[in-house]
Amino acid sequence: MKTAVKTMKAMVITSFGDTKVLKAEELPMPKPKDRELLVKVYATSVNPVDCKIRKGMFGDLIKIPAILGFDVSGVVVATGEKASDFKAGDEVYYLPRIVGWQGSYAEYHLVEESIVSKKPSNLSHTEAASIPLAGSTAWDALIERAKVQIGETVLIHAGAGGVGALAIQLAKLCGAYVFTTCSDYNIDLVKELGADVVIDYKEDDFVEIIKEETNGKGVDVIFDTVGGATFIKSIETAKPFCRIASIVRDITETSMPPELYSKNISLHFVFVQSSRYKLDMIRNLIEKKQVRPVIDSVMLLKDVAQAHKKLENGGVRGKIVLEVV
Amino acid sequence: MKTAVKTMKAMVITSFGDTKVLKAEELPMPKPKDRELLVKVYATSVNPVDCKIRKGMFGDLIKIPAILGFDVSGVVVATGEKASDFKAGDEVYYLPRIVGWQGSYAEYHLVEESIVSKKPSNLSHTEAASIPLAGSTAWDALIERAKVQIGETVLIHAGAGGVGALAIQLAKLCGAYVFTTCSDYNIDLVKELGADVVIDYKEDDFVEIIKEETNGKGVDVIFDTVGGATFIKSIETAKPFCRIASIVRDITETSMPPELYSKNISLHFVFVQSSRYKLDMIRNLIEKKQVRPVIDSVMLLKDVAQAHKKLENGGVRGKIVLEVV
Repeated sequence: MKTAVKTMKAMVITSFGDTKVLKAEELPMPKPKDRELLVKVYATSVNPVDCKIRKGMFGDLIKIPAILGFDVSGVVVATGEKASDFKAGDEVYYLPRIVGWQGSYAEYHLVEESIVSKKPSNLSHTEAASIPLAGSTAWDALIERAKVQIGETVLIHAGAGGVGALAIQLAKLCGAYVFTTCSDYNIDLVKELGADVVIDYKEDDFVEIIKEETNGKGVDVIFDTVGGATFIKSIETAKPFCRIASIVRDITETSMPPELYSKNISLHFVFVQSSRYKLDMIRNLIEKKQVRPVIDSVMLLKDVAQAHKKLENGGVRGKIVLEVV
Repeated sequence: MKTAVKTMKAMVITSFGDTKVLKAEELPMPKPKDRELLVKVYATSVNPVDCKIRKGMFGDLIKIPAILGFDVSGVVVATGEKASDFKAGDEVYYLPRIVGWQGSYAEYHLVEESIVSKKPSNLSHTEAASIPLAGSTAWDALIERAKVQIGETVLIHAGAGGVGALAIQLAKLCGAYVFTTCSDYNIDLVKELGADVVIDYKEDDFVEIIKEETNGKGVDVIFDTVGGATFIKSIETAKPFCRIASIVRDITETSMPPELYSKNISLHFVFVQSSRYKLDMIRNLIEKKQVRPVIDSVMLLKDVAQAHKKLENGGVRGKIVLEVV
């Protein structure tokens, strides 16, 4: 333990509820053991899953009191006695484990080194903190699970969202032809990220447009980042044997249309997993300028309640990053 | 057209309902054109999907009047002018297309040659007619969709059923360790087919046994041939990232447990597709004695209503074949 500081500030929830449950606390500084690292958090970010956990939707998996937050960009300050991949001073970025560990709304964060990756050298901590959860989610959905292939057609919902903005870039790098939905004020952004067909979902019917653009065939892959009625409607745009990856837990509450069966759909339920490998792969793409972060705004960790509100109000363009000062 | 016969007998439904809707009719002999073949049906069989269609459950896909039946073993008697893969006299077996074509409860059957395969040389027509739909279904579920790999654990529900009996054999050939459920009087059969752990589902809780046998880990692949509560309960036996293949359309009516999401399940909805390739592959395995048909009983086509009743009463061991004389 190389740091003399004995406590750290963190934003903690001790009950589930609205944004008021997010409260500053002074907590004991964690001590790394075995292959753990203690990381000084320079920046973290907010993700929709944070709001869902805060409201209690993951009460089966996550117990309170809890520190939320699932993105870290920072610097290693101390290492457990068996840690060997990183040393104090290393700049790192990673997705803290969502279940069983504390999150990153804090000045310091304890992590197993096996899920930690080197920060992209061409990004600031603020930029790098926008990547781990959203990037790993897009990677899990499109690369690991749906296995997007060259020449395929992919529908990505909410292409200007935190996950969507990275998903468009990954799908394009796979050689796919990308349809995406967004609001009118984000059309330029998603086009610039590489989307081939952009659908203003408030003005136009995405099912009609996709049927027209694919000569009635539909798409090979659907990435559902919205759930509910949008998920159900998306099935109309599916080609036979379409792979649908959904990151929205609520879809399990919906009764599913029989077209899933007659169309031989594969439905991949995606709950993002922490992994160094994925972040190594994404860092490579970022350093080669093949993928870039999309940041809506930068706030301070102490204002995380406001960041949650902003995210829940919708219309966020990429990610809201929280600097830890 | 080399046959002089002008009409053929077929079992037809002109309305949806109980087994009484299956009626013998004298119909015009179909004439093959282009790449079509006219096949004299020596044997066909009954499958659960026949009963479901008869009851109107597929009213969105299948219009009446209809000839049901989705297995043929027979002999080519005439060929369309562009057919080149088969000639009159060839012994063939195949899965008629379920949607858009007539089925095989008939003396003759018209088929596109692209989905027809050579009959296994070591099987009688009666034996060969037990294979196409059940074998293609097991192939689609385990090989094409769930992609069973060597060393994996697989749960196959209803291992003594028409599909299950072939699925056990295919999963074993993939190098998997197979758990199956069946009734007490079928335990010897499924063991002989290769099942490693046999669960008498009326006596024992398959979830408990699988958890015990896998040290709490669960299985890599689940083949759901039952649906409903059994499907939902099976999710408790799933390892993280388990692939579930279901051939039961009714599961889309069930609301799904959130474990599908937290366990990163891939759910493959399987509606079997006709293909020569699959039946070529299965023929190879049959001729090498690596797969064998399992036949419950042999009846006559004119008694198809009784065969439907027998199938719906449950407890069938493998397939009920119908000879066409």
